[in-house]
Amino acid sequence: MNTIGRLLTLTTFGESHGPAIGGVLDGIPAGISIDTSLVEKQMERRRPGQNRLVSARREPDQVEFLSGIFEGRSTGAPIAFIIRNTDARSQDYEQLKDVFRPSHADYTWQERYGIRDWRGGGRASARVTAPICVAGALAMTALKSIMPQLSIEAAISQVGPITVNGTESDAKVEALLDRLRKEADSTGGVITCTIDGLPAGIGNPVFDKLQAGLAAAMMGINAAKGFEYGDGFQAASQLGSQHNDAFLMKDGKVVTATNHSGGIQGGISNGQPVTFRVAFKPTPTIGKPQQTVTSDGKETVLEAEGRHDPCVVLRAVPIVESLAALVILDQWLCGSRK
Amino acid sequence: MNTIGRLLTLTTFGESHGPAIGGVLDGIPAGISIDTSLVEKQMERRRPGQNRLVSARREPDQVEFLSGIFEGRSTGAPIAFIIRNTDARSQDYEQLKDVFRPSHADYTWQERYGIRDWRGGGRASARVTAPICVAGALAMTALKSIMPQLSIEAAISQVGPITVNGTESDAKVEALLDRLRKEADSTGGVITCTIDGLPAGIGNPVFDKLQAGLAAAMMGINAAKGFEYGDGFQAASQLGSQHNDAFLMKDGKVVTATNHSGGIQGGISNGQPVTFRVAFKPTPTIGKPQQTVTSDGKETVLEAEGRHDPCVVLRAVPIVESLAALVILDQWLCGSRK
Amino acid sequence: MNTIGRLLTLTTFGESHGPAIGGVLDGIPAGISIDTSLVEKQMERRRPGQNRLVSARREPDQVEFLSGIFEGRSTGAPIAFIIRNTDARSQDYEQLKDVFRPSHADYTWQERYGIRDWRGGGRASARVTAPICVAGALAMTALKSIMPQLSIEAAISQVGPITVNGTESDAKVEALLDRLRKEADSTGGVITCTIDGLPAGIGNPVFDKLQAGLAAAMMGINAAKGFEYGDGFQAASQLGSQHNDAFLMKDGKVVTATNHSGGIQGGISNGQPVTFRVAFKPTPTIGKPQQTVTSDGKETVLEAEGRHDPCVVLRAVPIVESLAALVILDQWLCGSRK
Amino acid sequence: MNTIGRLLTLTTFGESHGPAIGGVLDGIPAGISIDTSLVEKQMERRRPGQNRLVSARREPDQVEFLSGIFEGRSTGAPIAFIIRNTDARSQDYEQLKDVFRPSHADYTWQERYGIRDWRGGGRASARVTAPICVAGALAMTALKSIMPQLSIEAAISQVGPITVNGTESDAKVEALLDRLRKEADSTGGVITCTIDGLPAGIGNPVFDKLQAGLAAAMMGINAAKGFEYGDGFQAASQLGSQHNDAFLMKDGKVVTATNHSGGIQGGISNGQPVTFRVAFKPTPTIGKPQQTVTSDGKETVLEAEGRHDPCVVLRAVPIVESLAALVILDQWLCGSRK
Repeated sequence: MNTIGRLLTLTTFGESHGPAIGGVLDGIPAGISIDTSLVEKQMERRRPGQNRLVSARREPDQVEFLSGIFEGRSTGAPIAFIIRNTDARSQDYEQLKDVFRPSHADYTWQERYGIRDWRGGGRASARVTAPICVAGALAMTALKSIMPQLSIEAAISQVGPITVNGTESDAKVEALLDRLRKEADSTGGVITCTIDGLPAGIGNPVFDKLQAGLAAAMMGINAAKGFEYGDGFQAASQLGSQHNDAFLMKDGKVVTATNHSGGIQGGISNGQPVTFRVAFKPTPTIGKPQQTVTSDGKETVLEAEGRHDPCVVLRAVPIVESLAALVILDQWLCGSRK
Repeated sequence: MNTIGRLLTLTTFGESHGPAIGGVLDGIPAGISIDTSLVEKQMERRRPGQNRLVSARREPDQVEFLSGIFEGRSTGAPIAFIIRNTDARSQDYEQLKDVFRPSHADYTWQERYGIRDWRGGGRASARVTAPICVAGALAMTALKSIMPQLSIEAAISQVGPITVNGTESDAKVEALLDRLRKEADSTGGVITCTIDGLPAGIGNPVFDKLQAGLAAAMMGINAAKGFEYGDGFQAASQLGSQHNDAFLMKDGKVVTATNHSGGIQGGISNGQPVTFRVAFKPTPTIGKPQQTVTSDGKETVLEAEGRHDPCVVLRAVPIVESLAALVILDQWLCGSRK
Repeated sequence: MNTIGRLLTLTTFGESHGPAIGGVLDGIPAGISIDTSLVEKQMERRRPGQNRLVSARREPDQVEFLSGIFEGRSTGAPIAFIIRNTDARSQDYEQLKDVFRPSHADYTWQERYGIRDWRGGGRASARVTAPICVAGALAMTALKSIMPQLSIEAAISQVGPITVNGTESDAKVEALLDRLRKEADSTGGVITCTIDGLPAGIGNPVFDKLQAGLAAAMMGINAAKGFEYGDGFQAASQLGSQHNDAFLMKDGKVVTATNHSGGIQGGISNGQPVTFRVAFKPTPTIGKPQQTVTSDGKETVLEAEGRHDPCVVLRAVPIVESLAALVILDQWLCGSRK
Repeated sequence: MNTIGRLLTLTTFGESHGPAIGGVLDGIPAGISIDTSLVEKQMERRRPGQNRLVSARREPDQVEFLSGIFEGRSTGAPIAFIIRNTDARSQDYEQLKDVFRPSHADYTWQERYGIRDWRGGGRASARVTAPICVAGALAMTALKSIMPQLSIEAAISQVGPITVNGTESDAKVEALLDRLRKEADSTGGVITCTIDGLPAGIGNPVFDKLQAGLAAAMMGINAAKGFEYGDGFQAASQLGSQHNDAFLMKDGKVVTATNHSGGIQGGISNGQPVTFRVAFKPTPTIGKPQQTVTSDGKETVLEAEGRHDPCVVLRAVPIVESLAALVILDQWLCGSRK
């Protein structure tokens, strides 16, 4: 349940306010030079408190690697790593012990398990995505040595109702986030990801399609509500004669004239850029009073305090890239050996 | 690669024009009375040629059960079934042997495997979804005996640019499909699914979230381009104070005032209706001339003939329901035993 | 539960007296020329009624391939096949409907599922090993094209208390089996298997060791009671200085002076022949009267009739080879790509 | 590759001389009171240096739990734990950097991965079994709360050629081990395990038989060479009329008169004690000079120093119990819900 992948598996563990979070990444090919600077860079991008737009919790997020790396290279053994939880002020959450926060996982977790670690969201906290960043950076490092031309880049394409497209929209986003912070409210957004340089022939038909792997991975991110690739939901309104990507020859290679398909046909990459988008709901933690119920079935009003981001997409960009790298490497490893 | 599920697994097999297609469904609890009329009903809904809106191929689609059922009840052993391909006119496809049809799986399959069964789309044909219907009907039968109040109902909510909402839109859809048929073109659409009566507490946190299972399953359907649940992509534009679902007590039960979440919070059902939408691209098979390339790298123009539907969503409704049933039953089986 | 393997998966289905038994083999590399004569040969070796030593049931065992093969070659799609049950005289078993046969699966199956197909042993019949032979022959065909020097050969090394080692023992075995047939009794035996020509470096450390894969597969065969590789249980009595296999250089290659290890060290092949042995208990079906109980809890005496073999190992030889081929190919496919 | 189990999964990681070893145990039911004293007890039994019979390395083996436990109870989230490697004198092993130790995993690991952590055996060290003990103790704790009458007890039944059966054999074993220590040699042994109080109906038919799960788990232990259950290899020599376990009624319950089956029939427990035996080869590390080769293909003589046990079975007893507990709990969890 806490593992993703088939030949490349990532198992994560840890709660927001437990001793540590971490992961075990099994299946990274042996002999890869491990680039810890990429790990640090991705962790830094995910880190809260890095600027005034995101929540103030200051996590040093020191990643300690415990296994699977020898003299700077992967050995083929599982790579385990932990990140200590050093800034876990559980008392901030004491008030939430017996209250189900609206649109959080408190109530459903309680129904599923009959017990929950209520401190800081426990296992359902967005903090549990940090190990994904570490693993994703390792997967990207391995991919770079296998397909040097590959790039996986995600970016925010929408914050609340604002389409992000340059300097002008940046100012609007700043203004929106300032307002949300003042009003103790939050908003959602959309992240777009492009995988460039992926060779044709990666993926699988039927149930393990490349888009199925990507969709499942992205739907595992906290607050994700939608996934589409290529023209996505827009494709529903199109005609086949508009949507179909004509094949052409270019420099002796099969290419497509357009890329409505988003680089995937029949579950397998076609050599064009793989493009997909992930929609996120507003951060459910808001400061405004909210109607809710207690764990013993009494209605109440919740006025939450504590740290939170007004928009979850700001920190989710490296998570999207990381999961994409994990899925791509796994699907490549599962491909038929020739 | 052709298997979905963890404790309830469906493995499908077969090509459009091979001897038979079929599946093996393993994990249906023992002792369930098997309702073959539901199997037939779902197969009938998926069947092409059933009305003038869909392609003319007349498949009797006789399902033969081979195992796992004894004296009308499931035994806990795998339930295998086959459907013979009786109407496979491969010669219709002879012309496609050496041509990559745009936005089909021909080219990517060739790159992935170096060989492909080009007859009628082979393994990539929409025909391979028929076994999903059979298995889905069995899963639904099992679910009904476990949760009698459960219903899983999908419906077409959009055909091309037309929102489907009643008598008026039906006429528009008819007109659009008539025009597409005349123009040898196609269009896409959206299917909405509602799972009602699902108890709270079903699903899993982190990578095996209920929405991740649903998204992966739906993204495995031919031509699917997007998945969203609850408010989906619309949630990106909302404020947290709008989106959050307040908890209330009603008849001694925890309910939510709204259902922006789509019945899932933190990957686990919350007792409200689970709602999701799946976007489909236009059927890639169209009659209009299309620019493409041959398998030996020459540019050419394809003028396809043969049977096809102007809109894939017309037949995909029972597929969506079937996959939803398989995912729900599997997640329920994987839930912690108490 | 009815699937073996990770990248190469075999899912079997079917009961002894249902419409058909069969399997789905997924993961055979694309482009392999399929040698159906090997399938037939292995099926023939497994077939009962082939000589006077084994039971008289005459199964034609016609294998029908349904998918995954195109113009004589594998396509990478799942290869499904069925074998019709044509000689299923269920009435022979009517008397067993309410009686638990000693050391059969009747009682445990009933406890596990609350229902059982009692006709001919149902899903627990040795007949369900036939699909393993089909799949094993396909796996062997694929292996031959990948490692032409590979051979997997099993042989009976013990029948009852008789060590099989040539002409003299053959006469003793004949005499034993004649006696058993007359006395309506049965006995066990041991099968030895040698995998020759396997390159070093195949297998995995820790839980997916090559010997773990082999042991699990062999313990899945009906009546198997023990597995050992290399010196096996004898190794327990040895000294390290006796057991260790010294490394030598031979023709520029690393070889071992002895092969106590049985070709596997640390879970991975070392280039020497992989050797293992599988012990089988006596066929539990015997004609002698046996004390047992009925399904409604009454003690009774069972005097079984019907067809059975006096020694199960006579037919298990190709099963052992087939499972070995499936395990080897799967472990090779799972090996790190370079 | 480093994960065992289906619904209850244990993923282990770590090398003998890396920063830490550990594991992630996912699937322990929620709400179980965690008995850390049992963890400590099992770790203590496995610990080297505990008496003069085993190697002198003094590992404190402090287990640190990182997740999945809240207020003394399991939460249903993965339980991660680490054990720091505090006594890792890698320089002891420097001489082994370029030499393949006979019957160790050095050569095969190098062939498989092209790189190996040679310090103390790296990932192939027996030290990696420590996390299995931790996980096994947790699994046993969970099992005890589900089946209070269950006991899983392993014991040494053979050391070298000596059958262990009481006071007399103990003296012989002492003498043997003293001699081996003096002669810098080693020997093997056999461990017998009995699972008492397991209800009938646990396990699965065909490929996931209870004995298949046990065999695979045991064959994953370092130095294990053979597995048998019930009468095992002895059953090969028996007659069916001797081997079959007659059913009787006792106190209204179905029992068997004998237990040649070892508590398992058709892959499923029958309510009698489950008995199995595991054979171990001699510890491959010996002090005597051995013929071997270097990593650059030169023949050489190895005279190993460093810490080692003269007999591996002394420490393997809790490992066998632990893996048995993990397999039993997993199979129980996978059983059909009623």
